[in-house]
Amino acid sequence: MSNEHNYPFARRTANMKASAIRELLSVTTQPDMISFAGGLPANEVLPVEDVRRVLDQLLTKLGRSALQYGPTEGYLPLREQIATMYRSRGVQATVDNILLTNGSQQGLDFAGRLFIDEGDPVLVEAPTYVGALTAWRPFLPKFVTLPTDKDGVIADQLQDAPPFKFAYLLPNFQNPSGLTLSLERRHKVVEIIHQRNMLVLEDDPYRELRYSGQDLPSLIELEGQALGADWDAHGRIIHLGTFSKTLAPGLRLGWVIAPKAIIHLMVLAKQGADLHTSGLSQIIVSELVADGTLQRNLPGLRALYRERRDAMLDALNTHVGANAEWTRPDGGLFLWLRLPEALDSSALLQQAVAQKVAFVPGEAFYVDPHGLSGRHELRLNFSCMGPDKIREGIRRLAALVAQPAIVK
Amino acid sequence: MSNEHNYPFARRTANMKASAIRELLSVTTQPDMISFAGGLPANEVLPVEDVRRVLDQLLTKLGRSALQYGPTEGYLPLREQIATMYRSRGVQATVDNILLTNGSQQGLDFAGRLFIDEGDPVLVEAPTYVGALTAWRPFLPKFVTLPTDKDGVIADQLQDAPPFKFAYLLPNFQNPSGLTLSLERRHKVVEIIHQRNMLVLEDDPYRELRYSGQDLPSLIELEGQALGADWDAHGRIIHLGTFSKTLAPGLRLGWVIAPKAIIHLMVLAKQGADLHTSGLSQIIVSELVADGTLQRNLPGLRALYRERRDAMLDALNTHVGANAEWTRPDGGLFLWLRLPEALDSSALLQQAVAQKVAFVPGEAFYVDPHGLSGRHELRLNFSCMGPDKIREGIRRLAALVAQPAIVK
Repeated sequence: MSNEHNYPFARRTANMKASAIRELLSVTTQPDMISFAGGLPANEVLPVEDVRRVLDQLLTKLGRSALQYGPTEGYLPLREQIATMYRSRGVQATVDNILLTNGSQQGLDFAGRLFIDEGDPVLVEAPTYVGALTAWRPFLPKFVTLPTDKDGVIADQLQDAPPFKFAYLLPNFQNPSGLTLSLERRHKVVEIIHQRNMLVLEDDPYRELRYSGQDLPSLIELEGQALGADWDAHGRIIHLGTFSKTLAPGLRLGWVIAPKAIIHLMVLAKQGADLHTSGLSQIIVSELVADGTLQRNLPGLRALYRERRDAMLDALNTHVGANAEWTRPDGGLFLWLRLPEALDSSALLQQAVAQKVAFVPGEAFYVDPHGLSGRHELRLNFSCMGPDKIREGIRRLAALVAQPAIVK
Repeated sequence: MSNEHNYPFARRTANMKASAIRELLSVTTQPDMISFAGGLPANEVLPVEDVRRVLDQLLTKLGRSALQYGPTEGYLPLREQIATMYRSRGVQATVDNILLTNGSQQGLDFAGRLFIDEGDPVLVEAPTYVGALTAWRPFLPKFVTLPTDKDGVIADQLQDAPPFKFAYLLPNFQNPSGLTLSLERRHKVVEIIHQRNMLVLEDDPYRELRYSGQDLPSLIELEGQALGADWDAHGRIIHLGTFSKTLAPGLRLGWVIAPKAIIHLMVLAKQGADLHTSGLSQIIVSELVADGTLQRNLPGLRALYRERRDAMLDALNTHVGANAEWTRPDGGLFLWLRLPEALDSSALLQQAVAQKVAFVPGEAFYVDPHGLSGRHELRLNFSCMGPDKIREGIRRLAALVAQPAIVK
């Protein structure tokens, strides 16, 4: 009975906080707001007509099974499709290595359930994806940060860190930094975690959204290629994927690929969590993969986002110039901006919202309030509006960064 | 490093077990099996054509918003519809008292997250819904059983029990027993938990599936009527509902209604768990409620299931007679059968499967292996097949119950 409402909440609830980003979204839905705050795909690329077309056939063929209770592991043909994709990239996976989830967020939750006891060390990049912190805080882990530079997380830090439950890495166009882990470091990460017998949780939502540079193999692919037929018995990487960025987030469909011993426990976690994922979402996605829609739509998606990324980078060059530093991502949805030390990004947000521009201040992406804190940093999303709005938003932001009024 | 695979699993995973029922379903999908084992709605009542009809209009009107990220709380119009229903029954609820979930199973998970610390006492009926046990075992609670008789859980036991986090009750046509809590006891439960300042988690998936007797108010309705405008401030009941039994389980759509202080934390739990529920499922259900389809389909659903319940009860009378005892449910999907003490239900299942009949042995529905154990009990589902198959299945089962070979 330890709270004002007299409800006997569990201890972990004290560690459950609203995501700063979700709260912000409520401000940023004003129609005249130029929002760089969200992390959404562009509305105009959501495949409404594709979904309508396939649903019409699918409901005849599969309607009853999609509306009935289904297997916890997920719709078998879709698990086959995903396993086939990984096999083509060198991972000797079968359907038994694949669990379908409600977006990769649910994979993050399950990783917490399977591995985190109170006080367990979990390594996260600094900065890192805020939704992973939201998923794991209720398990009361001890977060340990891994610093990053322009080539992504500094792999040697995995060598030096004390033993940990898993290291959480986003190798491609990281949310929030936009940084990509170099190929050399990917090899190094795989080598170190096998030497040390540790685990990596690899979160890879943006792989297909590359606008420049060369596609790089994921950590689990490098591991799979190295281990060959031994991968299932000796793999130490849990990999999360999603259709949220390539098809539609509202379908809530992601996957976990990992050795069977891990997937087996995740299936038990999912039985307790929600029995199984939406049947309609699973048959829709399977069909959009099978009939080539997903692959066919990707070039257009990339072209649209590339133009928007370039518009933002150009506008930053033109308007902000030497007043700040920022990353130049090869893909994904975000870039990361560091203000001069005199500027506080939360204070800047107040002023920016008054000018009808929004972004996410950096602090939410760090776990350690005493270390790297993100107070002078912020995340900019470039996927959700056209180049003209992006330029106008950056122009307004640049004016605030240049003026002395918000110097603390 | 405490397991054969050398993965550092959390302690709670030792308490994660496969549901006996889910495992059984794999055996029972053989086409010639007469299965009383599942808990599924009948395939023939799944509203495939209704879903097709509304989707065609909805994709034009709402397709983009259904495919985009949505609010964690759920689709606002559907939360309005649910709140309105409870207000019409005397609970002064608003949309802020409603969270949409992936079936009510996710509501069970969230109740565990919010309330169960290791070792916390949780009261459950004996027998109880096995999926709730699956959801909560990872939180390492101490389960305490509440015995039931023909009028449902014995309310006085709530008076005498030592302090507990919550009591989990299924007042209507309980899964697995088929028993219904009497009106007098419902009043008593509400009275006791308010006297004692305890919580009840009320799980009510079957309310609309009543085939005989009179509809009874749920616990939260009695509480809401008693508290009036004070309900949100002083309510002590968390109530779970679902569209799985009235529309379709594959849509994975349920809800929680509770005081705002509880819903607020559940929303944070859902942010971490999976961000939000499938957008398509939410708009489909909202439309099927709004256009009257759900209400229009209910009489047919009830007629179909009533006929099947009656067929099972008749067949039990005819073929089993005095060789066993069973419940006579007024609704829901299940009845509960007690064998003579000499018969073990797990041993009987082996023989039954050889005769192409399946059911669920009683043990999985009890938490206490040393107390009431269900060894001589079993659950029979009557919703999934026609009267002729039901009669044939019960005839085969009765022959096994009558023969001496399986006496232990």
